[in-house]
Amino acid sequence: MCRWLAYSGSPVLIEDLLYRPKHSLIDQSLHSKLGAETTNGDGFGVGWYGVGETPGVFRSIEPAWNDRNLREISRHIDSPLVFAHIRAAIGSVVQQTNCHPFRYGRWLFMHNGFIGEFSKVKRDLVLAVDPTLYESIEGSSDTEVFFFLALTFGLEDDPPAAVEAAVGLIEDVGRRHGVEQPIQMTVATTDGKRVWGFRYSSVRDSRSLFYSTDVATLRTLYPEVEILHEVSDESRLIVSEPIGDLPGAWNEVPESSYGVVDEGQDELRPFTPKAPSRPTAVPA
Amino acid sequence: MCRWLAYSGSPVLIEDLLYRPKHSLIDQSLHSKLGAETTNGDGFGVGWYGVGETPGVFRSIEPAWNDRNLREISRHIDSPLVFAHIRAAIGSVVQQTNCHPFRYGRWLFMHNGFIGEFSKVKRDLVLAVDPTLYESIEGSSDTEVFFFLALTFGLEDDPPAAVEAAVGLIEDVGRRHGVEQPIQMTVATTDGKRVWGFRYSSVRDSRSLFYSTDVATLRTLYPEVEILHEVSDESRLIVSEPIGDLPGAWNEVPESSYGVVDEGQDELRPFTPKAPSRPTAVPA
Amino acid sequence: MCRWLAYSGSPVLIEDLLYRPKHSLIDQSLHSKLGAETTNGDGFGVGWYGVGETPGVFRSIEPAWNDRNLREISRHIDSPLVFAHIRAAIGSVVQQTNCHPFRYGRWLFMHNGFIGEFSKVKRDLVLAVDPTLYESIEGSSDTEVFFFLALTFGLEDDPPAAVEAAVGLIEDVGRRHGVEQPIQMTVATTDGKRVWGFRYSSVRDSRSLFYSTDVATLRTLYPEVEILHEVSDESRLIVSEPIGDLPGAWNEVPESSYGVVDEGQDELRPFTPKAPSRPTAVPA
Amino acid sequence: MCRWLAYSGSPVLIEDLLYRPKHSLIDQSLHSKLGAETTNGDGFGVGWYGVGETPGVFRSIEPAWNDRNLREISRHIDSPLVFAHIRAAIGSVVQQTNCHPFRYGRWLFMHNGFIGEFSKVKRDLVLAVDPTLYESIEGSSDTEVFFFLALTFGLEDDPPAAVEAAVGLIEDVGRRHGVEQPIQMTVATTDGKRVWGFRYSSVRDSRSLFYSTDVATLRTLYPEVEILHEVSDESRLIVSEPIGDLPGAWNEVPESSYGVVDEGQDELRPFTPKAPSRPTAVPA
Repeated sequence: MCRWLAYSGSPVLIEDLLYRPKHSLIDQSLHSKLGAETTNGDGFGVGWYGVGETPGVFRSIEPAWNDRNLREISRHIDSPLVFAHIRAAIGSVVQQTNCHPFRYGRWLFMHNGFIGEFSKVKRDLVLAVDPTLYESIEGSSDTEVFFFLALTFGLEDDPPAAVEAAVGLIEDVGRRHGVEQPIQMTVATTDGKRVWGFRYSSVRDSRSLFYSTDVATLRTLYPEVEILHEVSDESRLIVSEPIGDLPGAWNEVPESSYGVVDEGQDELRPFTPKAPSRPTAVPA
Repeated sequence: MCRWLAYSGSPVLIEDLLYRPKHSLIDQSLHSKLGAETTNGDGFGVGWYGVGETPGVFRSIEPAWNDRNLREISRHIDSPLVFAHIRAAIGSVVQQTNCHPFRYGRWLFMHNGFIGEFSKVKRDLVLAVDPTLYESIEGSSDTEVFFFLALTFGLEDDPPAAVEAAVGLIEDVGRRHGVEQPIQMTVATTDGKRVWGFRYSSVRDSRSLFYSTDVATLRTLYPEVEILHEVSDESRLIVSEPIGDLPGAWNEVPESSYGVVDEGQDELRPFTPKAPSRPTAVPA
Repeated sequence: MCRWLAYSGSPVLIEDLLYRPKHSLIDQSLHSKLGAETTNGDGFGVGWYGVGETPGVFRSIEPAWNDRNLREISRHIDSPLVFAHIRAAIGSVVQQTNCHPFRYGRWLFMHNGFIGEFSKVKRDLVLAVDPTLYESIEGSSDTEVFFFLALTFGLEDDPPAAVEAAVGLIEDVGRRHGVEQPIQMTVATTDGKRVWGFRYSSVRDSRSLFYSTDVATLRTLYPEVEILHEVSDESRLIVSEPIGDLPGAWNEVPESSYGVVDEGQDELRPFTPKAPSRPTAVPA
Repeated sequence: MCRWLAYSGSPVLIEDLLYRPKHSLIDQSLHSKLGAETTNGDGFGVGWYGVGETPGVFRSIEPAWNDRNLREISRHIDSPLVFAHIRAAIGSVVQQTNCHPFRYGRWLFMHNGFIGEFSKVKRDLVLAVDPTLYESIEGSSDTEVFFFLALTFGLEDDPPAAVEAAVGLIEDVGRRHGVEQPIQMTVATTDGKRVWGFRYSSVRDSRSLFYSTDVATLRTLYPEVEILHEVSDESRLIVSEPIGDLPGAWNEVPESSYGVVDEGQDELRPFTPKAPSRPTAVPA
């Protein structure tokens, strides 16, 4: 399992997101409370938007808690949209190309969970990736294949539909191979403007996912917390497990649903996998 | 490009193979004379047979010249059959799973050269890998796919025929995609008893490959060189470029041919790629 | 804190020591039960005697649980005397030169615990290291300085006296700087023949330390455990916390004492720090 | 030896400094023309000023030419003052804490060259470091000790005088130990506003050092080079060896001198080591 955090809002120093809070993501890399594993020490990654057309991505196979370069860049980069992920590998190799978030163009993608019995289904899933996208796959993880399936099914145009199609295919292929739990997931993806957060699992018992209460409410509840007065009303966090210890600060994303963090208004909707009906390269 | 060395014979300390000689492989990692690149600093690997059913493989993404652990294990492991490889990456990521030698069961495989325009042909080649072998592919390099194609075509039964079939397929697929130089290669493979060394390229202008003169001859030529009196008559080295500076010590493997180092007698034969005629998963 | 293991006896595969047992040292790297920290993911090291004059040392800053090269060499090296250490850094940098075991000539040294408020006392302690040894210090950890102090005070001649002198100095210097807990330690050291294990702390509340019951007794208690019939009567393990789950297999080393594992007979004696009376470079 | 680059001027993307130019610093990591070694693959470092009180420092032991994180942060950070260094280790360990630039508070320091026979003089030099600074030394390199000596002698108040004192001491201690070439150096240091570049060696045959011609002159010479119209008149580069291929773009810093890049006006002055006359901790 893994832990992750997605931030969207007023530009903040990455350090303020990753290191400063009580029970921060960095703290969770050693002492996760809600994760399937307490230690998430098999590499990490941070993606952020700022200078440059595409987001920056810094990934390493060292444990996040003792990576000095992560601490350095966290102190020296601020950004209005940050993805961060700490990994507890279950199966695939610990290497930079397997660390989240994954990037394609302006898109980032990260995942907590797994594609069930990935070695059984990997070949069929990889074959379903658009051949023009295929060559951009660099690592060997289940999540990267998941991301490229979502891209194949139109992530850049309609993220919820694309993720629903990818998950539909993963469940379909999995079941054909006798996999009992084809997918377990919380997923975040972004184009640098909006953030989508998904919670789903084939067994309807998904990993935890939380989003932060709106900032105006938080300010009323906690007038003394300084940071709440610095960030804009639009600022939001989506996280695998709550950070900090403010009661009332976190709402759980319901089972089998997804949320969108957008400038205008946030939304929460049901998530329903749909195996693509159009013929793909996957053998029947 | 890369540099490599294959040793078979009396057990020797790995250090004696990699560090001791003039113009050693470690020296070549900084100052190759015959390589397409003078620096081979993008990781390395050593494979050896000894304790255990399968060969040991130690691989790292650090330059060989300053890896302390390589120096340590080299001083403390002796073996009768050693493969060593230093990498100059051209395209694929520098990560442990892309370092040579690659291992499957008792087999090792390493390569200097490339599959031309790999990103164009990768998908077709990967599809031709036996689906039961597919899941054992861990990295993203051209050589690993080449190895798994050779395994698909029977490497464990008839190595020359399997490599000829793999190369035949690579050339066939490459030409269908308009690749001018589908393959450039010197390759070594072993099952822990015999060693096969191949030299070939689609343009018939292959990377250099040398094998050592038989030890008895060397002893006569160089009675004062101590190591020659310690190793058995059967001991042989196959290398990308000569090590040491003994005139008469090295013979070039001819263009488009392969050699076998065996207990009884060594052989040198022509190498002729043969595209597999049996139908494969590759679309016509 | 850290966890460590010292083995002396019949040659065994390192893998059998580190990976095979229930609650193995590798398992402890993720889930220590008795350690001050549950995770020991800040690098590791293995030292072993075999081929070569000096022991081999393999150290890495990756967590032990996912280091592929550790697994490889563990499967392919057997040895009659093995030190292994997993680190939970508290202060000093995570770098190879700070990983245990440390080596000097034929000697190995490893430590669980700390020199209290090391930054306050470091300079004085380093000054007390014999100037001819000083240049061999490579890292920045408290343990390496401790090792070089023990070497300065005659480790190679009389290990218990040398460690008592080093600890005496550390406590003396610490107290002069107002350090409340100058030292906390379990330590193992060896010359490749005998192994010394020390347990001590300034506050007399030392980290746990255990040694294995003699093999003959274990064989009687557990006739069905195969490995006990393969290793010699002399074989011994000293560990930070028990490995496996055989009741009766482990004895705790008493507070403020040390043991010697020797070919003839093991001993257990009191440990009494003695600040060196001879003048040193340390300013009064 | 090593190669380095110091930039001061209009904010630029680090990528434009390190990767874009012909014969860029990254290119020099594989193919240095003027360096004592052609390959500078033993780690690297980048320091920059921007967000945050102190400069950011990103250091790694991988060769600069294939470090993906360096490429990422280079594309996503811009800064008005950048130090970059690629290392060819001669003696001291390849580890992050030995990579340049070194940082203390707002200061950065980097060096090409060496302290001669460092292991002989190290102890005396370390003893001369102010005890309150001593505990901030993290690595084992000659340059870090040099930096802390300069800090001891007042770097933050009068950089040229402090470097002259440090070099004076290094030469003094070296000569007392019979070292023929106590120091060989080009050095850059900065407080985030001004940059000092030093060129000196005990044998008066120092490593090369160049500074860029003023931008206005360059614009006249090369009206077609776009970047020259984007950066301010004050922008300057100081480098170990010329970058790019514009004739007239580079001036050599004379032997035994130093330059200051300042907002008002640049200066070039003689450099004269002065052993500190005040008593230090160094034994006579």
